[in-house]
Amino acid sequence: MADDILIVTEAELRSVLHFDRAINDLVEKAFAALANKDVIMPPIMSMDIPNANAEVDVKTAYIPGLGGFAIKVSPGFFDNPKIGLPSLNGLMMLLSAKTGLVQAVFLDNGYLTDLRTAAAGGVAARFLAPKKVSIAGVVGTGVQARLQIAAAFEERKFEKVLVWGRHPGHAQQCANDIENQIGVPAEVAQNVETLVAQAQLVVTTTPARAHLIKADWLHPNLHITAMGSDQEGKGELDPQIAAHADLFVCDRVSQCEKLGELRSAIKAGAWLVGRTPTELGDIVVNRSAGRETEEQITVCDLTGTGAQDTAIANHAYEMARKNNFGTLFKANS
Amino acid sequence: MADDILIVTEAELRSVLHFDRAINDLVEKAFAALANKDVIMPPIMSMDIPNANAEVDVKTAYIPGLGGFAIKVSPGFFDNPKIGLPSLNGLMMLLSAKTGLVQAVFLDNGYLTDLRTAAAGGVAARFLAPKKVSIAGVVGTGVQARLQIAAAFEERKFEKVLVWGRHPGHAQQCANDIENQIGVPAEVAQNVETLVAQAQLVVTTTPARAHLIKADWLHPNLHITAMGSDQEGKGELDPQIAAHADLFVCDRVSQCEKLGELRSAIKAGAWLVGRTPTELGDIVVNRSAGRETEEQITVCDLTGTGAQDTAIANHAYEMARKNNFGTLFKANS
Repeated sequence: MADDILIVTEAELRSVLHFDRAINDLVEKAFAALANKDVIMPPIMSMDIPNANAEVDVKTAYIPGLGGFAIKVSPGFFDNPKIGLPSLNGLMMLLSAKTGLVQAVFLDNGYLTDLRTAAAGGVAARFLAPKKVSIAGVVGTGVQARLQIAAAFEERKFEKVLVWGRHPGHAQQCANDIENQIGVPAEVAQNVETLVAQAQLVVTTTPARAHLIKADWLHPNLHITAMGSDQEGKGELDPQIAAHADLFVCDRVSQCEKLGELRSAIKAGAWLVGRTPTELGDIVVNRSAGRETEEQITVCDLTGTGAQDTAIANHAYEMARKNNFGTLFKANS
Repeated sequence: MADDILIVTEAELRSVLHFDRAINDLVEKAFAALANKDVIMPPIMSMDIPNANAEVDVKTAYIPGLGGFAIKVSPGFFDNPKIGLPSLNGLMMLLSAKTGLVQAVFLDNGYLTDLRTAAAGGVAARFLAPKKVSIAGVVGTGVQARLQIAAAFEERKFEKVLVWGRHPGHAQQCANDIENQIGVPAEVAQNVETLVAQAQLVVTTTPARAHLIKADWLHPNLHITAMGSDQEGKGELDPQIAAHADLFVCDRVSQCEKLGELRSAIKAGAWLVGRTPTELGDIVVNRSAGRETEEQITVCDLTGTGAQDTAIANHAYEMARKNNFGTLFKANS
């Protein structure tokens, strides 16, 4: 079987792989590995295609101890909705960490990315949210809005969810879906300010280029995870938030300073030159402190790492093999 | 069919796609496109895995006018031969240039790379070799030694081939194969110096880290294509050759100065600071001069470009569709 390549479709993946707490655990381990020097994660390969209003990113990471490493291709073709196609697609490959042979190709259209992205939010909530979260808020109404709340709910049993989106109809639909999904009342917030004021845990999930949350709105007992900015020019948080938070955490500093909220903060001069942000992995392995009191204000800036891809791809491969999903191809046939 | 993804195996590709002059033409067009500013080709993504004595490269390029763009994953796991596996493997994907949707995954184990790499040598011969080549020489005895001679033979009808390799048995086998393949006498050269002295066209195809060809051996009416160095630390040519050649040509300057013979020349101080090497694409589109007299000494430094991958992947896709090869997967099924 060593030479076989498993092709797995999105539908097959969806049938065996759902979001659950185990995926937060899996991604927590990826962050722990990232905190160790022996993870190898080259910078993201990024190709802008202005002609097509598109961007393609490729991520990878080698995590010692895992059987394979992922290479993930994420195209974003932002005119696709005009012709009825989703903007985001892509596929993920798993290569043997011992031989480099292709073990699997996941034709997942970004589904595995959705899961591992949500789980990074879950890990951020695990280590950074106040112990007591009564109300969680989510800004944005897409797939990640739903999944981020599901991932956070595995970590904090909040009693209510607030949703805000530019389109009230979408926000209502998202609130309904969340309510059905986690069984907790969810309602639409009038505006982002109200949402932040009431929540102890806020997740922003939008591709916003104008800041949605102002530094003035920060209050004690608050954690914010900003996962929407993954590209130069995007930014969901007032740059001053990075300066005002008690703790500002990055999934990967070298990525956040180019693609994340940290970039906006540096650009605005709100980030003290020479100050090093904490990495989530360092908190996971207890090398740096996470939240220390309920009152603190914490922020986590997520840009998405190849290590998360490698973690989820190995898991998906095991699940597919265990459940006999996918189609095997002889590598040399 | 727009949502279908075609999975094509190496065996299927080998049955429909052979090396021929059309592939030189195809890759010539890729170099022409590279000479135009509207090709988008990000730097190679490269991940070294010292634990596994391995390296993984990812290349891509968007060429306006082609239906798709390739993303190519090339793992090199150099301990594989110890367990009976080839060092080089990999796969290539073709994504729609309009929507980013995955059109095809070629489980080719590097076969398409072999073809497009040979064809770059073919294009170099087309524009740079003397018109009259009686003897061609090849240094190295692997797949590329055979294919580079085949690609060059499409451009210059030489009457004899000389082969040199570290293992005389491998060199003899390679000479036999070349003779059978192109129907021209091929024999083993005693050493590289003899080979260079007799040949008007020399191709070096090795992963050598010690230089195989000395500058002293250069003679009028000579073209050398060096395609083995694609990584820091490799180098087949005496660095002084870059200084002594009448014309030194790169497939891509930004790559050659990091990975190719140009790198060694710069490091050795043999390359005049500020002098800009000619790019092969500029010669193809007639923006720069190629060989101007039979007597000139020309050198072409090839590191392999994503543009070549995109060219061959589009071609392979057309061939596979036309010949009904490959297995179709519904993207969302």
